[in-house]
Amino acid sequence: MAVVPAEVSEILSKVDHTLLRQDASWEEIARLCDEAMYFGTASVCIPPSYVRQASDYIRNAYESTGRKRVAVCTVIGFPNGYATTESKAFEAYDAVKNGADEIDMVINVGSAKAGRFGDILHEINIVGNAVSGHILKVIIETCLLSEYEKERMCEVVSTSYADFIKTSTGFSTGGATLDDVKLLKAHMKNGKRVKASGGIPDIAAAKDFLTAGADRLGTSRVVKDAIQKYGDIL
Amino acid sequence: MAVVPAEVSEILSKVDHTLLRQDASWEEIARLCDEAMYFGTASVCIPPSYVRQASDYIRNAYESTGRKRVAVCTVIGFPNGYATTESKAFEAYDAVKNGADEIDMVINVGSAKAGRFGDILHEINIVGNAVSGHILKVIIETCLLSEYEKERMCEVVSTSYADFIKTSTGFSTGGATLDDVKLLKAHMKNGKRVKASGGIPDIAAAKDFLTAGADRLGTSRVVKDAIQKYGDIL
Repeated sequence: MAVVPAEVSEILSKVDHTLLRQDASWEEIARLCDEAMYFGTASVCIPPSYVRQASDYIRNAYESTGRKRVAVCTVIGFPNGYATTESKAFEAYDAVKNGADEIDMVINVGSAKAGRFGDILHEINIVGNAVSGHILKVIIETCLLSEYEKERMCEVVSTSYADFIKTSTGFSTGGATLDDVKLLKAHMKNGKRVKASGGIPDIAAAKDFLTAGADRLGTSRVVKDAIQKYGDIL
Repeated sequence: MAVVPAEVSEILSKVDHTLLRQDASWEEIARLCDEAMYFGTASVCIPPSYVRQASDYIRNAYESTGRKRVAVCTVIGFPNGYATTESKAFEAYDAVKNGADEIDMVINVGSAKAGRFGDILHEINIVGNAVSGHILKVIIETCLLSEYEKERMCEVVSTSYADFIKTSTGFSTGGATLDDVKLLKAHMKNGKRVKASGGIPDIAAAKDFLTAGADRLGTSRVVKDAIQKYGDIL
């Protein structure tokens, strides 16, 4: 196989290698894990129902072959964000119990549209308490929010227990844009980071999103692009 | 206002008047409840985060004005169905605690594709136990299943604690078809019923779905059609 250039490896190390299709099979998830371990992505981002199996799979590969142990990331209140706070907290706790290292939760968009930002902060912190010690990302679904609402959400997440603000679920009307990432980066405080997700097509675009201020990328296609460019790996 | 013909009233009484948009506002949900009470639909089908408020709203309207008390229906593991069984059970229990009368849960489609129908039966019954005494509907997402998988799901739901099999979330690649409703009707046993949902555009189509064997219809547009035909009501 071709050697992966250092710059590309660096980009891939910021990727949450993602598969959240409704009918994803275990074989596809296992393949996703193999690809993630091979390229050293930050994590695999997968449905909650596969967290335990993927977590075991990655640990076993790590122990038996020394392959890189990537984090397991999953999604909560996903993609519509209108589960109750209690349900989101339970779901997050359950995910961590099953082996999740990172949790991407969706805000209640209706609350944001109604200006109830205090409720959103409260919810983030309830979920944050349920998964204390694990990375928490907050998906704000930028495509549905106004400029003002995005800025307010930066304030909320900056003062919350969460670690990242994240643009998109990939299931709504639009994904990450460079302008949104720049806006979030400009308004986030307290060392909180930005994850861009939804529609990032390839390594070149990934680089642009990182340059714009993202610290993580949620995408399935960037690794596919790497496989195409640097040889079939498995 | 115009009088609603008896035949149309009968159709409307089978409708779960539905609003599950990610950014639905409380004003829209309240309006949905008003419309449902006015026309006497079977239920309103709404996001979990609005269940308590809608339940209070409908009870108050019932007590103070004598308007018809429609059921509150909500969705679990929605729309992707890949929350864990434990999370779905918690979410369902939480919904009932908040005042939900009916629960529409989504199956784990990955389990169906892998032929793990026993796991699906187990999950339905776990959720059924959590909401004992309330109506439980099982969304199988027909657009993603083969003929064989649909028939197997009829067997599973027929022998489960659930009351209905339901075609679609409305968030995947397709909604209810008349052929699917006929197939489900032909294979359901033990008095279990069929709910058609997703893309039912108007009263005429609603009638066709009922004739094909549906006992419930998940739709927002059938009531809209009634409002247009029989006068603005509110």
